[in-house]
Amino acid sequence: MSDLKHKILDTVKKDLAEIETSLRGNLSPNFDLIAQVAGHIMFSGGKRLRPLLAVLCAKLCGYRGTYDKNFSTIFEYLHAASLLHDDIVDGASLRRGRPVANSIWGNTAAVLVGDFLLARSLSIATETGSMKIIRTIAEVTEKMSQGEIHQLIKKGDPNLSEEEYMEIIERKTAVLIQGACRTGALIAEASNREADALSDYGLNIGIAFQMADDLLDYTSDVAALGKDVGSDLREGKMTLPLIYALKTADAGERAYMKKIIADQNFSVQDFKTLTERIEARDGISYTKEKAAIYVGRAKTALSVFQDSDIKSLLLNVADYALDRKA
Amino acid sequence: MSDLKHKILDTVKKDLAEIETSLRGNLSPNFDLIAQVAGHIMFSGGKRLRPLLAVLCAKLCGYRGTYDKNFSTIFEYLHAASLLHDDIVDGASLRRGRPVANSIWGNTAAVLVGDFLLARSLSIATETGSMKIIRTIAEVTEKMSQGEIHQLIKKGDPNLSEEEYMEIIERKTAVLIQGACRTGALIAEASNREADALSDYGLNIGIAFQMADDLLDYTSDVAALGKDVGSDLREGKMTLPLIYALKTADAGERAYMKKIIADQNFSVQDFKTLTERIEARDGISYTKEKAAIYVGRAKTALSVFQDSDIKSLLLNVADYALDRKA
Repeated sequence: MSDLKHKILDTVKKDLAEIETSLRGNLSPNFDLIAQVAGHIMFSGGKRLRPLLAVLCAKLCGYRGTYDKNFSTIFEYLHAASLLHDDIVDGASLRRGRPVANSIWGNTAAVLVGDFLLARSLSIATETGSMKIIRTIAEVTEKMSQGEIHQLIKKGDPNLSEEEYMEIIERKTAVLIQGACRTGALIAEASNREADALSDYGLNIGIAFQMADDLLDYTSDVAALGKDVGSDLREGKMTLPLIYALKTADAGERAYMKKIIADQNFSVQDFKTLTERIEARDGISYTKEKAAIYVGRAKTALSVFQDSDIKSLLLNVADYALDRKA
Repeated sequence: MSDLKHKILDTVKKDLAEIETSLRGNLSPNFDLIAQVAGHIMFSGGKRLRPLLAVLCAKLCGYRGTYDKNFSTIFEYLHAASLLHDDIVDGASLRRGRPVANSIWGNTAAVLVGDFLLARSLSIATETGSMKIIRTIAEVTEKMSQGEIHQLIKKGDPNLSEEEYMEIIERKTAVLIQGACRTGALIAEASNREADALSDYGLNIGIAFQMADDLLDYTSDVAALGKDVGSDLREGKMTLPLIYALKTADAGERAYMKKIIADQNFSVQDFKTLTERIEARDGISYTKEKAAIYVGRAKTALSVFQDSDIKSLLLNVADYALDRKA
């Protein structure tokens, strides 16, 4: 574990424990199957980034109540629902080093338990009694599904542009993190200025996180990643390192890379060669630089807040986006 | 078309046309794929029962505004989302005489467009600005997913009791119709007494509708049904005609029936024999009588309202639940 991750985890230990309790308490599964499938996806070493951000953002805006952990579960449930439906879509076999839920319980159970988690998060959102929070959740769910559909349409398309890639990752990943941060502010009844700043923070770290995640497919080994290396590409996901390398490659190289992309059954050696090409064409460094820009924007967004321990922590979380190894 | 259906459709022609316009207008698909998949499931001769009931219930409670059609779309979108996810679950090949969406566009697209429709209905619910309506939608979606999961768990279980069957159909079908009727009352800002009465009406016709639907699998031919006869059973759905016949059959007959149930590849002749056994053991007549009881309850629920054309229409809709042929 990196020093930064260690430092963050140490500071939020108590919050994380309370979030964990709420996640179990709020699930209300009335069937064993729900507890099993939801448990498989949710209690398998997730970072709880989204609920944690909601809780920290509420604190930053001066919230001293006791509902934050409860409401923060909305974002982990939405995340888990999205993962369950995602894995059907992706045809992946591993997530976080474990078999995906649909490979154990079937597509059917994965779809339905995903629906249940979506419905639970909606129910918890109504418990806030805040129209602003509910509107945030509605927007988030709509954009997420659009992002997933956009990604599906562009599956395996070697001509995907950087602009479209940005649109996809913003919707499929960043708006949920943005929603968690905004909701934290709304729980604290913060000013519009503060809520907008935290939305901005969340959106930008969300983008940076997804870019870092996309980098891992080309820089990690299977043990650290908890899924097969090259699995993004095998699922037809065109990500920034590859998009950039395709743009900067010469015609011969581009044709060679496209051949590997087109072949879903590429070998480990093919993938290694592709990764070398991406590196040679600065796909890795370009993506890291881009991600760093978004981390910078996230940090700048926090400038409307006075310095505090919580603010330092949120700045650290932004840095962690780039620092992560898995 | 039956006389009753004809009479109802004639009276609500204008409302239906306006609902149709709203359904197309509210969809806001930002990708062709959404328009195609959602269009396939939604613009293929659905009865629009749910939005129509919301509109009629609002009218019955004195609503004279112009938002009812718009808000009524929530219930058709939720219904369509549920059908899209259902067809993945069921492995059915036909719905309303057409191939199911997932057989054309794949499970992936069906899951994601279902998610989109769910998200759209939530967005439209927030536009009402009514916490009561939003809470209703949250409850409905949660119960629906529980009903679907319950049905999945009990798939092919020949020991499913009538009580559990009732629990399943209430959740998977009736609560949505109940929600549509309650929302109609809420749009009209009706009294609690009126809203509760219309909830009660909706719940009871919902149950009757599902029973009538379950009967069709044993009494219809493929042309009228728009899907394969016996397809409920082939998908492992144990419905009331069969549950009752299993209960009243003698040991030998029961073993024979269970053998057909256990064999997903039963022949047309097997199914014909099973249907004859169900008839002989009064499974059909028992289900019809039960459904009639719920229709009666639905009508009784309307007694809190003064007589009017709209009330007569809602009474007719209740009768139509039993009268339907497909």
